Amino acid sequence: MADSNDPAIEYLRGRRGELVERLRELLRIPSVSAQPAHSADCRRAAEFIAGYLNAIGVRAEVVATAGQPAVIGVNNDAGPRAPRVLLYGHYDVQPVEPIEQWSCDPFAAELRQTDMAGRPAPEGGVLVARGSADNKGQHMAMLAGVEAVLKTAGRLPVNLKVVIEGEEEVTSPNLAGLIRQRKDELACDIVVLADGSLAGSGRPTIAYSARGIVYSFVTVRGPKQDLHSGVFGGVASNPANGLARLIAGLHDATGRVTLDGFYDGVDETTDRQRAELANLPGKEADLAGEAGVAVLGGGESGRQFNERRWFRPSCDVNGFGGGYQGPGSKTIIPAEAMAKVSFRLVGRQNPVKVAESFRRYLEANCPRGLNVQVQFEHFARPFRADRSQPAFAAMADAIRAASGAEAVWVGGGGTLPILADLKDILGADSVFIGLARTDSNLHSPNEQFNVSDFHLGAELSAHFWPRLAGQAGR
Amino acid sequence: MADSNDPAIEYLRGRRGELVERLRELLRIPSVSAQPAHSADCRRAAEFIAGYLNAIGVRAEVVATAGQPAVIGVNNDAGPRAPRVLLYGHYDVQPVEPIEQWSCDPFAAELRQTDMAGRPAPEGGVLVARGSADNKGQHMAMLAGVEAVLKTAGRLPVNLKVVIEGEEEVTSPNLAGLIRQRKDELACDIVVLADGSLAGSGRPTIAYSARGIVYSFVTVRGPKQDLHSGVFGGVASNPANGLARLIAGLHDATGRVTLDGFYDGVDETTDRQRAELANLPGKEADLAGEAGVAVLGGGESGRQFNERRWFRPSCDVNGFGGGYQGPGSKTIIPAEAMAKVSFRLVGRQNPVKVAESFRRYLEANCPRGLNVQVQFEHFARPFRADRSQPAFAAMADAIRAASGAEAVWVGGGGTLPILADLKDILGADSVFIGLARTDSNLHSPNEQFNVSDFHLGAELSAHFWPRLAGQAGR
Repeated sequence: MADSNDPAIEYLRGRRGELVERLRELLRIPSVSAQPAHSADCRRAAEFIAGYLNAIGVRAEVVATAGQPAVIGVNNDAGPRAPRVLLYGHYDVQPVEPIEQWSCDPFAAELRQTDMAGRPAPEGGVLVARGSADNKGQHMAMLAGVEAVLKTAGRLPVNLKVVIEGEEEVTSPNLAGLIRQRKDELACDIVVLADGSLAGSGRPTIAYSARGIVYSFVTVRGPKQDLHSGVFGGVASNPANGLARLIAGLHDATGRVTLDGFYDGVDETTDRQRAELANLPGKEADLAGEAGVAVLGGGESGRQFNERRWFRPSCDVNGFGGGYQGPGSKTIIPAEAMAKVSFRLVGRQNPVKVAESFRRYLEANCPRGLNVQVQFEHFARPFRADRSQPAFAAMADAIRAASGAEAVWVGGGGTLPILADLKDILGADSVFIGLARTDSNLHSPNEQFNVSDFHLGAELSAHFWPRLAGQAGR
Repeated sequence: MADSNDPAIEYLRGRRGELVERLRELLRIPSVSAQPAHSADCRRAAEFIAGYLNAIGVRAEVVATAGQPAVIGVNNDAGPRAPRVLLYGHYDVQPVEPIEQWSCDPFAAELRQTDMAGRPAPEGGVLVARGSADNKGQHMAMLAGVEAVLKTAGRLPVNLKVVIEGEEEVTSPNLAGLIRQRKDELACDIVVLADGSLAGSGRPTIAYSARGIVYSFVTVRGPKQDLHSGVFGGVASNPANGLARLIAGLHDATGRVTLDGFYDGVDETTDRQRAELANLPGKEADLAGEAGVAVLGGGESGRQFNERRWFRPSCDVNGFGGGYQGPGSKTIIPAEAMAKVSFRLVGRQNPVKVAESFRRYLEANCPRGLNVQVQFEHFARPFRADRSQPAFAAMADAIRAASGAEAVWVGGGGTLPILADLKDILGADSVFIGLARTDSNLHSPNEQFNVSDFHLGAELSAHFWPRLAGQAGR
């Protein structure tokens, strides 16, 4: 990191040990939202964060929901002309199972100087703990930057709202309702969140899009029970063959999805966007290597891999099964077959319309002698930010100041329903950054977070707030 | 049954209790070929049958194989001009599991006067025991007819060879080798076996064909591990989608199998054959009812259901799976997907050529970014007898004499590898009849055999041998 005369940065550099110890305290609270036995721990984590916010000068409370509580903090001291910004994070963590695959207690917040392979860890060491990267380490870094500005400048240059929820790992069932309820208090011009990853090389990224999703369970039923394939082969319709036919028909030979109206609301990528995608540091071969394949053959032919994964919709079978799957052979026509089929959506694709079109497709194309049923499990709208907003430039500038490198602008292939919800309720786009790494083992055993990335995030945050105020005043 | 002045028939009618008791003795031997713990029982069953054969005048021995022993019996006293006939059966039985679903000890050979639902059983009662219908009751009925002729006429009018094997339920791995070894001793003009079922109405059938089979395991592999479908959807090829595409491509829109050369050796059904099929007692609606479907939508369009199930080849997925099949949703691209795919073959289709064509199809059509492997588990050639041979007319005549009804001539959709093997090694076609019923619970708990069907089989057998001699002399 570059030298700095910035008092906020000096503040952070002088208190690195203390900041890390505060994070470790939070990491020791096993706030697993999916497991009712950890409800009290979730509340403890919320109270810890609210206490911290109040201590640094952000007026915070723990707010009950139908599930785990959320923390809401507000500091509106910047005056009516200053930009309003909402900082989002989540204190809940994934379950730790399979616990036997951890090399240490997931809630001991171990600080190690070597990595899993015994090589020296990056300077400052690595925190091995559930939630270290996802998301406690990331939002605590962002809050450390807030603390630094508050403590050195006396006040924030922006009107800040903080929402740290406790149910992100269980699909945030109560978040939208809470934000709708507190809409006036949480009104903002922009949302900022650190819940992603640095680029492969460690460069900070700004993600400006996320795909939506439709997730479905499809069941094809035929005979009342498994039939002898000798007696009935060529006579009774086979649900497994029928389901395979329905799945195969979802794509044409060029990899396009065939559903009626599927591409409604999908904007064509512009030449300028294509050029930007082509110049990103990550290469197709790197991604293929990550997947362990020689070529990335999925999606629409004739489109670059970044375009395909971020800006084009897709359709995947996430699982299917039917008939006899055990060892050896069994000569049956299965009574039924099932598939979990999901669609990733982009642009202004409407999940409900995609689902309706999928249902019509299945019903219209189900082979004779079979019945098909589809049940929809998740809907989430796609999100794409308007990058021309000044907050994005402020973040790019803060990244340059904190890391000495240009931000990497990326899209996102996954689904972050909160981004579309926040835009819907508050009318604000999100600036989505990330401090984890691809090897941080998010959701996996031995989750870890580099201490140096925590400090990078804290400095980036300290750089961001004044830049947002300067460049994004209302 | 009609009155008779035939001494052999009188012999059988005078000894019904004794004949049933002999069958029950055999049913009490738990000769489960699949379970090594029952090896000694298999030998006991073989010795029981050899002892019986020797007692009635068929010189028999128990012959060791690499697996369970077989019984070979010979009575060549009819002279060099008499027809030579091989009677086949099997003494081994399926495992009894799930034992808790039986209403009695499967090896107590219970003789009941009511059926499972408590209604009166057919006259003579019903034997509830593993192996009662498949196949002990059936071959013991045929042998009872042999006994009756030997005991009343003093000698058989045909040169008889008996093979009762002990490994039919485990795919007869040693039978072909044994018959090849004993080729001269077992030389015959025709094979007779009772191992099928009466028509739905209880009328005896003569089956003159069986389909062959190619059974394969197909695996499609993509990424080295399950991938996040958000990150990789539309980029990485999906093995489940790819496998579905390969399966779907196996049939065209009319239900024909698309493999190159697949229909080589499939003879077109003649108008005369079609007319015969159309006049059979079983109707399409009956078969649909058995399957529990409104319509039988499988196979090639424009062909009658009996033609499709007996004289046309077919292709079915017997099972498939890949990815996440548990409750709820998981957003992955699976690392691999698998299917068990089998083909039923007819006419002169060559299983090895079909397998080669299937492999070429898979390799040529596997989507980019995926690998496909296929492993072949079973090959069996189809069988179709020349019904113009006098033995078929003799059997039809015996059926008329024993039951008072015309035989129902049927094809067979299942696979009986021994028929093709016997034709290959001995050059003899098989006359395949059946004494079980569709509700005999073959291979299932509470297997049962009507005592009246046992007696019908014994009389049918007694009628058959002289008719074969009279009508099929060499």
